[in-house]
Order: sequence, then structure tokens, then C-alpha cells
Amino acid sequence: MSNSLHQLYKSSLVLLTDFYQLTMAYGYWQADLHEHEAVFYHSFRKAPFAGGYAIAAGLGTLIDYLALFHFSNEDIDYLTGLKDSNGQALFSKPFLDYLSQLKFSCDIDAIEEGSVVFPHEPLLRIKGPLLQCQLLESILLNIINFQTLIATSAARIVQAANDEPVFEFGLRRAQGFDGAIMASRAAYIGGCIATSNVLAGKLFDIPVRGTHAHSWVLCFESELEAFRAYAKSFPDRCIFLVDTYNTLEGVKNAIKVADELKPQGFHLAGVRLDSGDLAYLSKEARHLLDKAGYKDSLIVGSNDLNPSVISSLKGQGAKINTWGVGTHLITAYEQPALEGVYKLSAIKSSKNAEWEYKVKLSEQAIKISTPGILSVRRFYWDSDGKQAMADVIYDEQQGISESCTIIDPLDPTRRCLIPRDTPYRELMQPIFRKGKLVYKRPSLKMTQEKTKCELKQFDETIRRLLNPHQYPVGLEEKLYELKLQLVLKAKGFLK
Amino acid sequence: MSNSLHQLYKSSLVLLTDFYQLTMAYGYWQADLHEHEAVFYHSFRKAPFAGGYAIAAGLGTLIDYLALFHFSNEDIDYLTGLKDSNGQALFSKPFLDYLSQLKFSCDIDAIEEGSVVFPHEPLLRIKGPLLQCQLLESILLNIINFQTLIATSAARIVQAANDEPVFEFGLRRAQGFDGAIMASRAAYIGGCIATSNVLAGKLFDIPVRGTHAHSWVLCFESELEAFRAYAKSFPDRCIFLVDTYNTLEGVKNAIKVADELKPQGFHLAGVRLDSGDLAYLSKEARHLLDKAGYKDSLIVGSNDLNPSVISSLKGQGAKINTWGVGTHLITAYEQPALEGVYKLSAIKSSKNAEWEYKVKLSEQAIKISTPGILSVRRFYWDSDGKQAMADVIYDEQQGISESCTIIDPLDPTRRCLIPRDTPYRELMQPIFRKGKLVYKRPSLKMTQEKTKCELKQFDETIRRLLNPHQYPVGLEEKLYELKLQLVLKAKGFLK
Repeated sequence: MSNSLHQLYKSSLVLLTDFYQLTMAYGYWQADLHEHEAVFYHSFRKAPFAGGYAIAAGLGTLIDYLALFHFSNEDIDYLTGLKDSNGQALFSKPFLDYLSQLKFSCDIDAIEEGSVVFPHEPLLRIKGPLLQCQLLESILLNIINFQTLIATSAARIVQAANDEPVFEFGLRRAQGFDGAIMASRAAYIGGCIATSNVLAGKLFDIPVRGTHAHSWVLCFESELEAFRAYAKSFPDRCIFLVDTYNTLEGVKNAIKVADELKPQGFHLAGVRLDSGDLAYLSKEARHLLDKAGYKDSLIVGSNDLNPSVISSLKGQGAKINTWGVGTHLITAYEQPALEGVYKLSAIKSSKNAEWEYKVKLSEQAIKISTPGILSVRRFYWDSDGKQAMADVIYDEQQGISESCTIIDPLDPTRRCLIPRDTPYRELMQPIFRKGKLVYKRPSLKMTQEKTKCELKQFDETIRRLLNPHQYPVGLEEKLYELKLQLVLKAKGFLK
Repeated sequence: MSNSLHQLYKSSLVLLTDFYQLTMAYGYWQADLHEHEAVFYHSFRKAPFAGGYAIAAGLGTLIDYLALFHFSNEDIDYLTGLKDSNGQALFSKPFLDYLSQLKFSCDIDAIEEGSVVFPHEPLLRIKGPLLQCQLLESILLNIINFQTLIATSAARIVQAANDEPVFEFGLRRAQGFDGAIMASRAAYIGGCIATSNVLAGKLFDIPVRGTHAHSWVLCFESELEAFRAYAKSFPDRCIFLVDTYNTLEGVKNAIKVADELKPQGFHLAGVRLDSGDLAYLSKEARHLLDKAGYKDSLIVGSNDLNPSVISSLKGQGAKINTWGVGTHLITAYEQPALEGVYKLSAIKSSKNAEWEYKVKLSEQAIKISTPGILSVRRFYWDSDGKQAMADVIYDEQQGISESCTIIDPLDPTRRCLIPRDTPYRELMQPIFRKGKLVYKRPSLKMTQEKTKCELKQFDETIRRLLNPHQYPVGLEEKLYELKLQLVLKAKGFLK
């Protein structure tokens, strides 16, 4: 698989990081901590959109990024030029020499893209030299937070549309170039079947689709002329935008052109409604199309759609059967950032030392990190893995008891007993070992399929868009106890 | 000035467009309309964040983009491979040959970056061959909408902070790579004095700043040890993050380290509070620092800040004097997309024909476009241009009457008379002529200064963050009349 980032960004992206990662790297290097082995993990605190789940995405892009990871001469030149307030170089030459030689050499384990994931679960774990783990924080958060957010946004929109086709049309309102490009990728993972973004189509092999703009219609003497001209250019994939002047007159014009050109083999793919009362207009349009014999012509709806609007249109019996979603999908309008974090969970104080487990405190329980070398196991009601029961976050050194109790990290009274011999699957896969990619990447199409299959493994009460039932996710009891002890100790309640 | 996009993206970005721009281009080409001269303009419908104004941004990036505008062989290869549902090539070879030869040759006029702008005003106008104007729609909207949104977001945050220093720290929660990079650029235009994003710092010459992460503290035996090590590496720019365990104990540890290292010339730049009750903690921290003789050490506040939270902290007398803003700034969390649109306003039906003015109808008045070759003039109360009075949108062919009436596009009874000889300034500048850049680009620092100066020209009631007074912006009366006639005619009320 070719590296899409390499195609897009031919230079190094290593400086796409927060400045403090570099100053900390320098500090670690000066304190001779830089090659101490450390473990960090990525997780998010709440499911986005007040929903019950998220769809993991971004790992493929991170893999592409890591293939490019190096400090170029140009990067080193820039860092050499940074001064402190006395005009002295901020970073020493030996440190910059170290960076210029640096090769990615960590282990990464991660939950695969397209997986259904929940708050507190480690989506990704990185183990390796402290300096490298630290340097990767910003870019990893940037990639995983955004793509997970958008894949989830897409999955919810597809769900609201009862699995009818959804096109992603967001480029013009997206947050920057790859606010569009990476979002198209993630939206495809989440279930959109096509994008309007041609570059995303090219980079990720996503089908590209579109209709035409109002300006097309305005460039001709009449709507009828405009439709005739478009039909001539695209005889078999014409979806006419019918609302430039008057929507239902527009539908009639579309039918007229289709009737005229039928003898030449023209096929009216559909019409698009982009304004007005979509419920009413779609029913009228369907009636007109059916009456004229165009029962299989699509009705595409667009205009600031989001899951609530789509659900509402469905409830009103709207006859839209294909959905074009832009702004709300591509910017995750209802919640434009995922609260994903990246936390240190273990470190070795010397080469052959034992792991020291770490927690970051906070007055808010939700912001306290989890110590250990974390992993996630999903238990199922059935041996075919068709119905998920509960997820267990555990420490790899402690393992999981044969019959174990899991405890909600925010509510110690919310517990769940997993009986012995319950079928399960480990969610984390080895991705890198000592910097080498050991993971066979699925195609994006396969990842989209994975999303679809995984979502079916969860009860509809958990997938519900509003006020979902909370799927059981907890810390394995030994890990819960360990975390409790570390927090109490750090707060001075234990010696 | 070097091309920052060229540095970042070494390949063509011409396919970063909506698919329908390419199908329309093909349709225009087949209908022999592709070189007809057309005029399009960009404007937005509502000021973002329920505010009173926006700050124009993105033009510099668009200029960089246009310098790279061409279809590469690779792009043509991709387009050659697109098929219709019968497996036939979607685009003909002569058309693709035309694209591969295409050179940007339009005129562009635009309001400069850092300008205060209002709904309905054309921020940018493009005149040239229809096919080129159409092809640029998606990328132009992507760039201008996002950067204008973020520059406005930044200006409002700086305003809430009473012009105290604001650092942009958003990379980890941004929407993709240049959801961060371009946002750092726009945030700097809007008034942020530094970014944490090193690559943005390098590409745009923005100062880079940072503190350190909680993980730094966790890597040492104690917070005190961690602070000592950081102080050693950065003796003159140490801002300690003090909330890993207990915020006020952290402040005491920062003071202890500063006291210890004072003999070696260490200067405590400041402390950062990143959780808890920032109002209370900042007052206590100030007290501790002052008592210890560190009156000039900064107190940096961060943790999901937005204009409302900052205003509230100010109202409570919080002693924060430097603000680190991430998520809310970089994603424009309260409104993550600007409703910017790009509309055809005039076209020639043949080479030497007169302009035909165009309007796009809608049942919603706010969505009806304005016809003409649009420009904007700003009138002032004083000849020094210190106090803005009103903005007039007019058609360049019609011009402006010596004493004119302006009419609100959404409320025909809201009018404003501009007396003869009122001082004024044209807001639009020539940027490209026949594809050649004729505009001397200011530095980003100068653009930041422009934002600051321009904002002062507007009454504080207009700049108010909540429920602002509406600054008068209207169509010149002749343009208003023309638009009215065209709309009524298109709706069939006039013949």
C-alpha cells in the first residue's frame, strides 16, 4: 500500500508537534532519561455526541506518518536557529545531532480501525525510549482524535439514515485541507459510500460522486437548457440539482429532459433537493418521478443535514433515499473535538529495572489516568462473537483472573462479573515491534466492512443515538485495586 | 516570500476539489461555455459565534495555492481512469489535454487579510474564464471559510482576555494536520502572540512557546526533582506546570526551585495552572509568588478556555495574565464552520457581449445571492479613518451616487443615508490580473497589526462579544433595485 502522506507531503512532518515536546526531549536528554523505557497510552474520556460508542480511526495515517519520521537537515536548521531570551541557542549541538540520527524504534499495539470502542479504553499503546514516546504525543493525538471523531460522526449519520447511502460532501466547510482529506478517509471508514473530494478519492481509493452546482443552471438561458446540456455530458450519471428557481418545477424539467433523451439511451440517475421543506418536497418529487415512470431514479437530499434532521425527516416519511452530508459530518459540528488524551502509565528507572507504574492525579475522577501496561479484552455472550457482553481493561503483567470482576473506573459500585470460560477476543493488535511494522494493513474498504460488522455486535440500545444504554467497560479488579492504591499514595493517604 | 504550501505539499493540489467542479468543467467545455467570462464572489451569511464581525483571513494561503495551480501528469492519469457505469471513460481525451495545458488567468480582487468584515460583503471576487472560476470554488471556500473563522475566534478570545497575551495550543485537538497549521496562521492574524505548533512557527515565522507536560513530572521521583531538571535545561524560559499532584503545593515547589537556583541566575518565567478552580488558584498562586518576590513571574491559565470562561474568570478577579487556548480556539468549538458561499453574479454570453447579471433564488431571503460585479466601500465619520460609519456593497458598473442610501439586504426598511463628501476607503484590492500576482503581500506580523488597528475603528458596542450592535452594511440603492427586479423576474412576477 502506498504512503498517502508521502504523496501529499513530500517533506518531513516531524516538526508538526507541540514545542514543549522538543523542550522536554531536550530536558530528558540532558537528564539522561531519554532512553529509559516508558509506556504511554491513548484513550478518550467520553463518547462523542453524547452517544454510546466511538469508531476507532486514524491508525493507518499514523503508520504512514511513522514511515516518514525523521529530522531532516532543514528541520535541524530551524531548531538550531531558536534562541533563548539572551540570544543563546536554545538546543545544544550534540542534542540536535542526536535528533538528526534518531530512528523510530518503539513497540506499538493498537485497536484496529473500524472497531467499536468506548471511553477509558486504550486505543493505542506505545512502549519504547521515553524521548520518542514523548515526541509522538502531539501528532498521534491530532491524527487519532480527529479521525475517530469523524468516523463516529459518519457512523451515526449512516445509522440515522437506516443504512441508506450517504455521500460525504464536506470539503468546502472543512477545517483546512486535510481537515477535509483525512475526514473523507474517516467518513468512509464510518460508512459513507462516497466522497465529493477528488484528492481523497485518489489517495484512498474512495468512490467520488457529485451532482452539479446552482451556478451550472445560472450559466444557461433556462433550467431546461442547463439540464439538457448536463445530460448530454453525463448520460448515465445525471443527478439534477432542481432547486435553483423552484424545486418542483425543477423536478418537472428533469423529467422533461429525461423523456426527451430516453430514445438516445439517457437514464435519469436522480434529482437533488438542496433547500426548502425536504419532507414535503421529497414526497412530491417521488410522486412526480413515479408517475413519469422513473421509479428507480434517486432522490438525494442535502442542506445542513445531521443525525437529528435525518431522523426527523425519516419520521415524517420523507422520500429521500440518498443523503449528501457536508458541514455537520466533516466538522463534527455538534462536538468538533474528541477529548482524547495520551498518558504516561509506566516507566523504568534504569535499563534492567522493574516497571514503575504511574498515575496522573486530578480533582476530577474522569481525568485521573490509569497505570500499567494496558490492554483490552472483549467478552461475548456467544462463542461466535456475535453479541458483545463487556470490555475489560487490564494490565498485561497482572493478567486477568479466570473468572473476573470488572469495575467501572468512575463508579466503584458499578461492577460486572465475567464467568469463567466466557468467549473473548483481545482488541489490541501488535502494530510495530522495535520500530518495524508487523501489522498487515487491511484495505479501507475492508475497514469499512469491519465497522459495519462490529456495530451489529452491539445491542441497539447501546447504538441508540439519543440517551443510549451504557455498555459495560471496566478495569479488571486487580488493576482497579492497583490504581486506587497509587492514587491514595500520591494524595498522601497511604505511606 | 516563500510559498509555505510548496514547502508542505510538494505535489499538485488541483484535485483537492469537489468532483462536481470537474464534471461541470467538462460540461462547460462540451457546451463551449468554458472560456466565457464570468464573475463569482465569496461572502458569508452570518457573523460567526453570534458576534458582530469577522476577521478576513486565508488570502495569503490562496495566493500560495494559485502559484501551484496546474494539473500534473499524475492528476490527468487519475482522471483518465474514472469510468461511467458502462465502463466508458468519463472524460474525453481532448478535455483532459485542455486541463493539462490550463494556466490560471483570472483577475482576483479581495479584501485584505486582517480586515474587519461583515455578512453579505464580498470578501473576494474572481473574474475570468467560467471553467477556471468554477474549478476554484471548493478550494477557495475551504481556505477562506476556515481561516476567517479561526482569525475571528482568536480575535474574540484576545478581546475576552483584555488584550493580554494569548498562546494558541491547539494542535492535539485540531481537525487534521493543517486544521492545525492553517489555524495557527489564522490565530496569529487574529491576535494570538505565539503558537505551540513548531511547524506552523517554521512555515509562517510565528513565535513558538510551550511549558511542559504532566508526563515530565511523572518521570521523576518527585515534582521538586522534575522542576529542578527542567530549570537546568531552560534557565530563562521556565514555566512550570504545577497541577500534576496539587496545584498550590506545585507553586510552592516552583518557588523553592527558583530560590535554590537564583544564585546561578535562574529566572522563574512563570507557572501554568491547567485544572481546578482557576479563579481561586490563580489568586492564591499570585499571592505566593508575590510574597516570595516573584512579582513578574507569569501565571498562565489553560484548560478548555473560551471567551465566556475567560470573561467569567476576569469578572472574578482571576490573576491569570497569560492565556493558553487550545480546543475552543483551533476548532472554533462554538461554531466549527463559517457559512461562506461562492456565487456566480455575472456572465457574458459571448466574447464581446454585455455582462448578464445573475441571482440564485431561495425561499430564504438570506440565501438569495447578489448580482453584479461587486465591491465594498467603507465610509468613516472622520477624515483620518479612525471611526467607521457604514459599509456599502455596490456594483462597479453602476457605481455609487454622490450622496447615497444603503439598504439592508434582509430588511428593506433598514436604511442609512451616506451624505455627500463622507470620507471613505475601498476595501477590495487588486490581487491578480490575468493570472499574474499584482499584490504586494504584507508579512503576517503586519497583518496581525492590521487586525488590531481595524478593530479599534469600530465602536465597542459592535465588537461586544454578546448581543452586539449591528454595524450598518447595505446594498447601494441602485444595486438593491437591480437585485429586486432580477429576483421578481426570476420568480415570474415581472416579465
